[in-house]
Amino acid sequence: MIVLFTDFGPSGPYLGQMKAVLARDAPGVAIVDLLSDAPAFDARSSAYLLAAYAPEFPTGTVFLCVVDPGVGGARAALAVSAAERWYVGPDNGLIAIVMRRAGDAQTGDTQAGVPKVWEIAWRPERLSATFHGRDLFAPVAARLARGESPPGDERPAERVRAMAGTDWPDDLARIVYIDHYGNAVTGLRAAQLAPEAVLRAAGHELRRAARFSDLPRGAPFWYENANGLAEIAVNQGRAAQDLGLALGAEVEVVNK
Amino acid sequence: MIVLFTDFGPSGPYLGQMKAVLARDAPGVAIVDLLSDAPAFDARSSAYLLAAYAPEFPTGTVFLCVVDPGVGGARAALAVSAAERWYVGPDNGLIAIVMRRAGDAQTGDTQAGVPKVWEIAWRPERLSATFHGRDLFAPVAARLARGESPPGDERPAERVRAMAGTDWPDDLARIVYIDHYGNAVTGLRAAQLAPEAVLRAAGHELRRAARFSDLPRGAPFWYENANGLAEIAVNQGRAAQDLGLALGAEVEVVNK
Amino acid sequence: MIVLFTDFGPSGPYLGQMKAVLARDAPGVAIVDLLSDAPAFDARSSAYLLAAYAPEFPTGTVFLCVVDPGVGGARAALAVSAAERWYVGPDNGLIAIVMRRAGDAQTGDTQAGVPKVWEIAWRPERLSATFHGRDLFAPVAARLARGESPPGDERPAERVRAMAGTDWPDDLARIVYIDHYGNAVTGLRAAQLAPEAVLRAAGHELRRAARFSDLPRGAPFWYENANGLAEIAVNQGRAAQDLGLALGAEVEVVNK
Repeated sequence: MIVLFTDFGPSGPYLGQMKAVLARDAPGVAIVDLLSDAPAFDARSSAYLLAAYAPEFPTGTVFLCVVDPGVGGARAALAVSAAERWYVGPDNGLIAIVMRRAGDAQTGDTQAGVPKVWEIAWRPERLSATFHGRDLFAPVAARLARGESPPGDERPAERVRAMAGTDWPDDLARIVYIDHYGNAVTGLRAAQLAPEAVLRAAGHELRRAARFSDLPRGAPFWYENANGLAEIAVNQGRAAQDLGLALGAEVEVVNK
Repeated sequence: MIVLFTDFGPSGPYLGQMKAVLARDAPGVAIVDLLSDAPAFDARSSAYLLAAYAPEFPTGTVFLCVVDPGVGGARAALAVSAAERWYVGPDNGLIAIVMRRAGDAQTGDTQAGVPKVWEIAWRPERLSATFHGRDLFAPVAARLARGESPPGDERPAERVRAMAGTDWPDDLARIVYIDHYGNAVTGLRAAQLAPEAVLRAAGHELRRAARFSDLPRGAPFWYENANGLAEIAVNQGRAAQDLGLALGAEVEVVNK
Repeated sequence: MIVLFTDFGPSGPYLGQMKAVLARDAPGVAIVDLLSDAPAFDARSSAYLLAAYAPEFPTGTVFLCVVDPGVGGARAALAVSAAERWYVGPDNGLIAIVMRRAGDAQTGDTQAGVPKVWEIAWRPERLSATFHGRDLFAPVAARLARGESPPGDERPAERVRAMAGTDWPDDLARIVYIDHYGNAVTGLRAAQLAPEAVLRAAGHELRRAARFSDLPRGAPFWYENANGLAEIAVNQGRAAQDLGLALGAEVEVVNK
């Protein structure tokens, strides 16, 4: 299975052009659009989303990840193996949180899930300046999905994990996604928060609830969403608008 | 073929997460997004749309239907067999109009299309409070697509059809969908209306036309759309905006 | 591979209904959404986009093209073979630029890519007045994808190319698409422009740059996009809004 994680938006030709390359180079492999509206040009917010979604996919899945404001510049192209899944994308931190968590989770003798990184030195005959998703990352993802090894040289994982920078904590106390229902997803794993933790955002104090139907209409709260992240919602409302929460807004955790 | 009918919106991760489960559990089965912008939280409007679209799909199709404002609450989960197609979704009336029409259409000796209902008692190991589409309905749809029988107990169809409530007539005289071109789809089957029927909506009186090109630019009218529903349009205009028609707006039939 | 090129929009039931026909009639063939937001009702702008995207697809690809404001009227339905790919769609000029360029490119003895046209006389049992994409074009595309020949009679290519009209030049000096990032795509092939060519649009004078990262933040410019078209952008901005460029806006080429 090849899974697409991009900021290309739900319309336009870019997703289709990438999928055509995958269909040509890895015929018969299932292609799944996971997210086409990742925060545009925002590798940091996207990295926490990707790390939250990835674990539910089968081992062997190839994630084709394109949030790539530096396309055409000097950033490297990577293939990463972590927790028995593949990730292909730019070396801008987008895959760094996945790697950090896979590394943290390693215990015992097995080395199966230990993150490994290849820098992709291969270049296609035609490489546009602005669409490496189609020209470079998609052919590599197809190759991995066919069971071949990554083109290029393995390099130490530490250098990639360092791409994340010093302001990329283990959990990101910011709004990283606003969904179709107006819910505001944070980069905080709910399992890292105390049951009585209160989130403070845009001047509101939000307590945890187990589900929407526990609350009166119009009540704001936070809950553990289906991907394990703390998500801010308003019962039968649109939290982002109702509470004034924008992408990137800071969230403070009280009673951690 | 597994057909998705949801109110998840065209973007966001939810459709992709559901499709990944289908690709894992029913590999090789075609997955088709029929509608991802069904009226949000509105099982009634959605039920009339689903019933209009369903008959054109091949027998054996599995419809995975998620318009589910009560997720996490007490509503049951259903697998329904009607007119030789499967439907999986919440017991909130979403499948009730499909069942009613399949039941009405039964004549003669064959019982092939008689609606049957199973209440899904099976629960997955991990069941999130808010995303039964991925955790519960998708695995069941995949199972049906593989040719297996539904998990759970068969129960009388009447109890489900009753979910539709007393204000769910055979045809719904309301706007149930606004499409990309601004056309306003009603819940009325055109075949149930007289040729000279006039629709009255938002203060406008609309006559039937066979096709757009029969009318002058800017003229409002109604016509039988490609799914058999009465649809309100303005030639080379956007009916919803031009006539002030919102989702849920009432439509009155004159000269029925 | 069957590739969809439509103005149906990213949501709504129309794409899914077409794909269900393809999945039924050409099972196992990969279906790729290339563009679902082609300029609505605008066959001319769409024709230049289609001609820019098509060459990168493998030979044998079937393009199902539906930008069809005249649906239900007198326009013919076509199957076109050009440069070893198939195109199915309305006879309104949508396929004319593809044909013109395939014809222009013919040299030497091989006739493989010479455009040929069939007028589709076949009609399905059920043909709605408003949705030929599902009822007529999709079954024909599936038939071609199965390797069968087009239904109907071959006719001279000249008659189709004439559909393009006299105001359809080889390159269209207008904005033909605004993408998700706000970039404004023209109908001009960059390879036809001098390196020092300047584009004048909405009162702005734009010079060519090789890539976004060559320019200061907020600087407007044009560049050769990944499909060979001249595209107007603002580094880290949204060109359409920042420069006041709408779909269809004229572009003047200086220093051609």
